[in-house]
Amino acid sequence: MKIIPDSISNLIEEFSKLPGIGPKTASRLTFYLLTKPESDVQRFGQVLLDLKKSLKYCQNCFNITTESPCEICASPKRDTSKIMIVEEPLDVLALEKTGYDGLYHVLGGVISPIEGIGPENLRIAEILEKIKKDNSQIKELILATDPSLEGEATAMYLNSAILKLENVKIKVTRIARGLPIGGDLEYADEVTLTRALEGRKEY
Amino acid sequence: MKIIPDSISNLIEEFSKLPGIGPKTASRLTFYLLTKPESDVQRFGQVLLDLKKSLKYCQNCFNITTESPCEICASPKRDTSKIMIVEEPLDVLALEKTGYDGLYHVLGGVISPIEGIGPENLRIAEILEKIKKDNSQIKELILATDPSLEGEATAMYLNSAILKLENVKIKVTRIARGLPIGGDLEYADEVTLTRALEGRKEY
Repeated sequence: MKIIPDSISNLIEEFSKLPGIGPKTASRLTFYLLTKPESDVQRFGQVLLDLKKSLKYCQNCFNITTESPCEICASPKRDTSKIMIVEEPLDVLALEKTGYDGLYHVLGGVISPIEGIGPENLRIAEILEKIKKDNSQIKELILATDPSLEGEATAMYLNSAILKLENVKIKVTRIARGLPIGGDLEYADEVTLTRALEGRKEY
Repeated sequence: MKIIPDSISNLIEEFSKLPGIGPKTASRLTFYLLTKPESDVQRFGQVLLDLKKSLKYCQNCFNITTESPCEICASPKRDTSKIMIVEEPLDVLALEKTGYDGLYHVLGGVISPIEGIGPENLRIAEILEKIKKDNSQIKELILATDPSLEGEATAMYLNSAILKLENVKIKVTRIARGLPIGGDLEYADEVTLTRALEGRKEY
């Protein structure tokens, strides 16, 4: 016997496909929407249908944008001597809140042999090309990939690839790894603690 | 400067409206969908648009259904002498997994003075009417509202309302409250422990 109407089980299935949402949460979200006015649900659906309309990648930094070059790349206020290399567009969003005023380069992921993602699947050739071309203008490359196994490997790969470029003398930096603000030293893992010690500065 | 295109921030906003989803999770879900093929996102959107199409309340038990009476009420295999009173359609879904073979009555919520929900806003008159009409056929009413403050109050209200009905002698039961399976006695709160002791049975 079919207890749930198709339209409900379809939505539960769609919610279940999202990361971090299991079948129970998916049911809860679906039945929550059932209690909302039809117009609210329609708007949600329409927003999904419109999501990818007019979206493209910025041909300079590969962030997601409505126009290429994106507003960051096109802005005359940004410091073009700094390029921050990040994994995903979401990272740009987080970093913009810090007041960083340079440019970005979005790799579109990290090197991950297990998932079959090599340097050729990321926008690594593009950043190397950019460095070769704007050699004199770029002063610093900030490697801001995640402090995960894959993120560190990708940062190392990028650093050595940049070192191999001829006639290029650009400062390459890596964001600091250490204890997060509000964190608790006693609960920190040993890798984080080791990095926090390695990265210590004079007070 | 607008860093996020409208179509992205709109979807983040829609996800944020869902219960238990904060702005960070909403961003993560949105950017996850951006990495998926356009057809997947379109299907999700269409499923939302279709959600309430052809859905109605069963005029007998008030569960959500595509046809009234619903498949449970219409089934000749169900034991019509038992009616389980629940808060929401989602509760029916959970209880169906237990193999319960009686009928249901969905209240559509609980009595909650703080939220301004009184007995008149729930389908309480409907169940009392049903009892008066099918007095001889119904043998047991199972009160299966949540073991929360509001759920207990609603169960108590229902019990006293049924007692007040003239010429009605129906067994009214309440689902057991106690330690959940897999639970840990040492971490149980005192109300649960008290209920578990009150509800103890001979072994």
